[in-house]
Amino acid sequence: MSTGFFGDLQPIQFVGPESRDPLTYRHYNKDEVVFGKRMEDHLRLAVCYWHNFCWPGSDPFGGETFNRTWMAAGGDPMGQAKLKADVAFEMFQILGMPFFTFHDRDIAPEGKTLAESNANVNAIADIFEKKMAETGVKLLWGTANMFSNRRYMSGAATNPNPDVFAYAAAQVKNAMDVTQRLGGANYVLWGGREGYETLLNTNIKQELDQLGRFLNMVVEYKHKIGFKGAILIEPKPQEPSKHQYDYDVATVYGFLKAYGLENEVKMNIEQGHAILAGHSFEHELHMARSLGIFGSVDMNRNDYQCGWDTDHFGMNVPELALAYYEILMAGGFTTGGTNFDAKLRRQSLDPVDLIQAHVGSADAIARGLKAAAAMIEDGRMKGFVEDRYAGWKKLENQEVLKGGSSLEALAERVHAQDLEPQPVSGKQEYLESLANLFV
Amino acid sequence: MSTGFFGDLQPIQFVGPESRDPLTYRHYNKDEVVFGKRMEDHLRLAVCYWHNFCWPGSDPFGGETFNRTWMAAGGDPMGQAKLKADVAFEMFQILGMPFFTFHDRDIAPEGKTLAESNANVNAIADIFEKKMAETGVKLLWGTANMFSNRRYMSGAATNPNPDVFAYAAAQVKNAMDVTQRLGGANYVLWGGREGYETLLNTNIKQELDQLGRFLNMVVEYKHKIGFKGAILIEPKPQEPSKHQYDYDVATVYGFLKAYGLENEVKMNIEQGHAILAGHSFEHELHMARSLGIFGSVDMNRNDYQCGWDTDHFGMNVPELALAYYEILMAGGFTTGGTNFDAKLRRQSLDPVDLIQAHVGSADAIARGLKAAAAMIEDGRMKGFVEDRYAGWKKLENQEVLKGGSSLEALAERVHAQDLEPQPVSGKQEYLESLANLFV
Amino acid sequence: MSTGFFGDLQPIQFVGPESRDPLTYRHYNKDEVVFGKRMEDHLRLAVCYWHNFCWPGSDPFGGETFNRTWMAAGGDPMGQAKLKADVAFEMFQILGMPFFTFHDRDIAPEGKTLAESNANVNAIADIFEKKMAETGVKLLWGTANMFSNRRYMSGAATNPNPDVFAYAAAQVKNAMDVTQRLGGANYVLWGGREGYETLLNTNIKQELDQLGRFLNMVVEYKHKIGFKGAILIEPKPQEPSKHQYDYDVATVYGFLKAYGLENEVKMNIEQGHAILAGHSFEHELHMARSLGIFGSVDMNRNDYQCGWDTDHFGMNVPELALAYYEILMAGGFTTGGTNFDAKLRRQSLDPVDLIQAHVGSADAIARGLKAAAAMIEDGRMKGFVEDRYAGWKKLENQEVLKGGSSLEALAERVHAQDLEPQPVSGKQEYLESLANLFV
Amino acid sequence: MSTGFFGDLQPIQFVGPESRDPLTYRHYNKDEVVFGKRMEDHLRLAVCYWHNFCWPGSDPFGGETFNRTWMAAGGDPMGQAKLKADVAFEMFQILGMPFFTFHDRDIAPEGKTLAESNANVNAIADIFEKKMAETGVKLLWGTANMFSNRRYMSGAATNPNPDVFAYAAAQVKNAMDVTQRLGGANYVLWGGREGYETLLNTNIKQELDQLGRFLNMVVEYKHKIGFKGAILIEPKPQEPSKHQYDYDVATVYGFLKAYGLENEVKMNIEQGHAILAGHSFEHELHMARSLGIFGSVDMNRNDYQCGWDTDHFGMNVPELALAYYEILMAGGFTTGGTNFDAKLRRQSLDPVDLIQAHVGSADAIARGLKAAAAMIEDGRMKGFVEDRYAGWKKLENQEVLKGGSSLEALAERVHAQDLEPQPVSGKQEYLESLANLFV
Repeated sequence: MSTGFFGDLQPIQFVGPESRDPLTYRHYNKDEVVFGKRMEDHLRLAVCYWHNFCWPGSDPFGGETFNRTWMAAGGDPMGQAKLKADVAFEMFQILGMPFFTFHDRDIAPEGKTLAESNANVNAIADIFEKKMAETGVKLLWGTANMFSNRRYMSGAATNPNPDVFAYAAAQVKNAMDVTQRLGGANYVLWGGREGYETLLNTNIKQELDQLGRFLNMVVEYKHKIGFKGAILIEPKPQEPSKHQYDYDVATVYGFLKAYGLENEVKMNIEQGHAILAGHSFEHELHMARSLGIFGSVDMNRNDYQCGWDTDHFGMNVPELALAYYEILMAGGFTTGGTNFDAKLRRQSLDPVDLIQAHVGSADAIARGLKAAAAMIEDGRMKGFVEDRYAGWKKLENQEVLKGGSSLEALAERVHAQDLEPQPVSGKQEYLESLANLFV
Repeated sequence: MSTGFFGDLQPIQFVGPESRDPLTYRHYNKDEVVFGKRMEDHLRLAVCYWHNFCWPGSDPFGGETFNRTWMAAGGDPMGQAKLKADVAFEMFQILGMPFFTFHDRDIAPEGKTLAESNANVNAIADIFEKKMAETGVKLLWGTANMFSNRRYMSGAATNPNPDVFAYAAAQVKNAMDVTQRLGGANYVLWGGREGYETLLNTNIKQELDQLGRFLNMVVEYKHKIGFKGAILIEPKPQEPSKHQYDYDVATVYGFLKAYGLENEVKMNIEQGHAILAGHSFEHELHMARSLGIFGSVDMNRNDYQCGWDTDHFGMNVPELALAYYEILMAGGFTTGGTNFDAKLRRQSLDPVDLIQAHVGSADAIARGLKAAAAMIEDGRMKGFVEDRYAGWKKLENQEVLKGGSSLEALAERVHAQDLEPQPVSGKQEYLESLANLFV
Repeated sequence: MSTGFFGDLQPIQFVGPESRDPLTYRHYNKDEVVFGKRMEDHLRLAVCYWHNFCWPGSDPFGGETFNRTWMAAGGDPMGQAKLKADVAFEMFQILGMPFFTFHDRDIAPEGKTLAESNANVNAIADIFEKKMAETGVKLLWGTANMFSNRRYMSGAATNPNPDVFAYAAAQVKNAMDVTQRLGGANYVLWGGREGYETLLNTNIKQELDQLGRFLNMVVEYKHKIGFKGAILIEPKPQEPSKHQYDYDVATVYGFLKAYGLENEVKMNIEQGHAILAGHSFEHELHMARSLGIFGSVDMNRNDYQCGWDTDHFGMNVPELALAYYEILMAGGFTTGGTNFDAKLRRQSLDPVDLIQAHVGSADAIARGLKAAAAMIEDGRMKGFVEDRYAGWKKLENQEVLKGGSSLEALAERVHAQDLEPQPVSGKQEYLESLANLFV
Repeated sequence: MSTGFFGDLQPIQFVGPESRDPLTYRHYNKDEVVFGKRMEDHLRLAVCYWHNFCWPGSDPFGGETFNRTWMAAGGDPMGQAKLKADVAFEMFQILGMPFFTFHDRDIAPEGKTLAESNANVNAIADIFEKKMAETGVKLLWGTANMFSNRRYMSGAATNPNPDVFAYAAAQVKNAMDVTQRLGGANYVLWGGREGYETLLNTNIKQELDQLGRFLNMVVEYKHKIGFKGAILIEPKPQEPSKHQYDYDVATVYGFLKAYGLENEVKMNIEQGHAILAGHSFEHELHMARSLGIFGSVDMNRNDYQCGWDTDHFGMNVPELALAYYEILMAGGFTTGGTNFDAKLRRQSLDPVDLIQAHVGSADAIARGLKAAAAMIEDGRMKGFVEDRYAGWKKLENQEVLKGGSSLEALAERVHAQDLEPQPVSGKQEYLESLANLFV
């Protein structure tokens, strides 16, 4: 029985590029085979719980705008959580998307004790299990919210108070248990408060050691319970904290190396967080691929003129094409996927806006994927890069990289040959024009 | 015999805080003992060659403004280099600063071959040796310019062309030899072109491997020639490249770990580069201290409203105080020091402006140092931080950090105790007010 | 009878610079005469209502941290508003500050209709009147909150719906009436939603016309009721909106000119908003002075590494000195003053933190004022600027500025004299060093 | 006779979207009629002189990379200027673009006196006249370079030295004369040094008055010589100066109003400058349209992760579509056009890279134009905006805007009706999806 929230909205259909109706799929055709795989299997699109069903439309300067019935003040929290679950699964089916994602606190109200909170989460997980079986919708990943409650105001794993660390450990254990039970493909950690507000009260070394130990416990527990998914860290440079330790992909890599975790943990990369860290999205994806820690993506778009996390829906096809180019070059997703970590603008009040936003962005993403596949199939871009570094394929230069040389030996060669290497065009505009052939 | 460049300007004297003459030292009193050491030994101030003697006052929209005689078009390059050296040592003595720093290409003209370039560098180094002996001025560090010549337009160690890598190796060898010969306290690498302009023509993994191997060769050569100083990397996020691999301290740390160099290489941290990377200067210093790789500083100030490297002279005492607080907390400089990597504004045409800028900034730095020492001696800031993390000193929590616990064990404790940790004020405003007592 | 909120905290005393207790005034000595006026009369310090008594410590990623009793869920709104007023006036007296500021919605709960909301505001205003008479605390300015309620999500005066415009007009009328009744020295408008989220649904011309008309009505009403204070606009470039029409001082000036308001409206300039607009605080102050529209300041400090409005307490003395230098050069405040539009960090939970923050910042401000006065009394900075433009004082050049010349006439002179003007040093480092003599 | 610079490169042909060769036009089909006009007449594409023929590939950290023969050290300046003109017109013809643009100093060397410089400019203008007649290439606009020579280091019109003001006036006179002679469609002023480096040595009011008078003289001279084109100002917020007075469109508008120029001067809007000022390109275009001062565009793209002027070639079709949407909504270009103010990356060494960059970007621009036309023809976007403000079309609300109301009158209505306006969805995601139908 429908909640009626979406009125008589029917499941969105694929019509094709000629459609002029923005409430149809023009490019996202889940069964279309692109680069050897069904589009659905490539993209592994997921709808997130928090922005769609938990955020009331507030911002730092204004309150609720959406007035969703399941967030009404004074309602029965568990009743509201159940209604929310009903609406959520209706939305998954209207969109025809295969995955969803959630934080523990998104799906069920916090109780007076952690035990009570866990019980609430587990009760909703029971409902999820049933709904997932009925609909075929799967869990891309679960995570624990360790940043909203005031107990975490100074961090969770990095809190100066060891009791908060313990509390966080207990909360993550339950979130991992639930994720495991629901067949989640990954488990994610985002450390929004794992950072500092002011160096004046902070000991970074101490906090990093705490975070390193915490993450090792997560990995140990994963293996203990036989969780097969990936453990993913989601980098973000700041906000809410002034500085967050998981600043960007390269920073997290150094952290993983320092605590022996580089083979155990992968990255969940968000476009908006990349932008806030001063990088393009494709940079973060390429970097993760280079370091061997690419995992999954949180898809959205940060407004380039705003200095905070705007979580727009990704709509710029050329940018999405470059992102999927990197994803395909990394071998595509294994356990990971494309999670819509995007939210409506707070003026988009209508239920149909939730649908429209996901449909519009899914279509842009599908175009991005098809363009990326076409770039790879064309081969000129990849070939150009290979040719550019071809000199390093020579045996003698391979030797240099492997350690079989020295400053003196190379200096000797330079002097012996009066070497003066000539620069070669980098052809950026050619490559950009080439990319534009396919978007 | 004086070049006459500075007219009849006499060595700058320490007068004391009551002086109202900006061409006196009011706070930089080299022999004053602060926090157990002479100020000169604490700060180890160094004058750089490039901004003062090589930059003609140009910017991307305009040409030379300074019209220094030793840069006049059509002059004899080696004669100009010698005149430049004379002026430089006159300036060191007027300022009474103990150190200087240079790139190989700053001090001598590039020749037709690397051999010729090396000969030029070595000839000027002969002159330096004599002048250093006469004046007592010492070399804080040397480095090689591997970013100005067009051969390096696509990188030095990270160039797609292995011949450029070889050329760079040969150039660094000579720069290290010269630095060693002149008793340099450190050797620095700044990778302005070790990055990329566009991902479309770039293979990051390949380039990082090249850079890792190159740096290992530098370290191997250091040990071979018995160079006692530190090898320092200077992080910068971008400019001239769109992205530079030595983005910031945390990024470089990950790179060092990946290539086994974390015990061999330290950081030369620049205020302006920190700002461009989205960090405060004190963040980068604290991070380097936490990771055990603090080395030296390039002192300047980036205009907070400009998105490029402005290299202003540091003049903001409260900010400098926080920087030296971190430096003192790191144990102070060993081989490192405070290098003025700052340049005149291009409208500051007069020779005396060179002196004024260094004097004004040295005074601000001295005030910063004294304030930092006072903060530490007061003890309340440090004590606050220690108290904040005191819970982690407990044996049971030490055990947690050492690995003697697990998510399950901690969850058990949380549930057994119905633990609900209460947040405690972080007292940022108190700490900021406290800091203000001393600046 | 005290509310007990601040425990046994006594009014903060001036002790002097030698004090090492951050809960004393070391520099803010209200009766000390600086540059010909009592410090209190120069600075006209004001405590704001919103950050101190209405904000619960939430941010976009987390909820309430402060747990103030007067914000407790389920309380009687008017009773809470009265308690809040009691606490507020206790705080004003502990700080010994002469002014306060508020939005209508800060002081009283919103009712079911505007009439009910107005009645609530007026009831609290009755209480204010009594308390102001008892304590001598005065109102620097009042304003209306037209950005928090969802009715204003698409703007107040710039709303596409004329009914919202009417509603806003009615709300401002009441806020002006209350401000007038309480003897407010100014009335402020900050247009947080007077802007847009996306150009795709926006007609800027239409919205500017609405805003221009609205502001004219405000000015007309001011004259009608005989309000003697200034009407002030507070520029901000963005946040909450993607773009706000009152972007910065220069933009607002153009708007005022377009709608004939440049002689009726002045600027309330906020440090943090200046920074977000890409300007220094002193730039905005100098610009307002140059355009003849300087009014008042919202004093705070934006974290230079954060892209959102952080509203830190101003603590950097050299920066404050430059700000008060501009304020003094503008002739100082007339109706305006220094409003602390600054908030605690959300981890600063203790009531005493509210006091500490204001005391620490007031002291930094007082140092800034004294330094600025000393700079002016020294005269070298001002003299340097006057000398720099001295050529324009010549009669013939005055004529040029007044319109008595042309391109041809000037060209003729250039050719006749073979004019080649020589550049002169701008001496920025000298001037910065000079400023440092006084901070 | 060809210079041979472009080898045997033939004029670029339109082939159509199916082409996979980036050296063909796939979308820029000059004779294709779009929205009622030939594409060439819509876009009015122009090739600029400075980036293509004058910039040697240098950046602040490195020298020349391009090694163009006409920039070789020691060459005959006028001979080189003639060769440069030959190459330029060859390039215009290979591209088949109808317009070009230049600064006076781009085309001819600076002489020992202004008279000599003018003579050089005029000599090249003679050559241009002939070439323009032969090829049909026209001049979109001319301008004077008043920022490169050291005499202008402290500004041209805003220089503290009135002699520099006079010199600038004389230089502009000649540049306007040449522009007039060559049938230029506009005359542009970009004030790269009309700003300040530090407020400490600056009197903004004085400088604005100088700039206002200068611009009035330009307008007076335009009328005197009967120049029919538009006088255009090109806003930029900073770089090279810390702050430039022509910050953005809204700022310039205020300046024009202050000096009575708002009906005489229009805007030349650059994408990269918009971005540096914190705006989207379409914002600046929409703002200029709203203020009635839209003129022309400098087309390029700033790297979103770089804080300096990068002048990339515009390649992002969805962004270009929104720009041309605004241009078409403004009525399209009259005297203005689309000037490629974009430069090669400095690693793009090959002559063909110059061609490739313009071809690739022209194609992206053509796609943008066609998409914008389709959006307007579809009508839903425009219709949505009109409907959104429909309430203001009502007579009573028109009256309000015209001045026939007051705060009291509106308050009375609100209270009489117990008005509570209900918010309506802004539908940003729908509109973004709609836009994506056409790109």
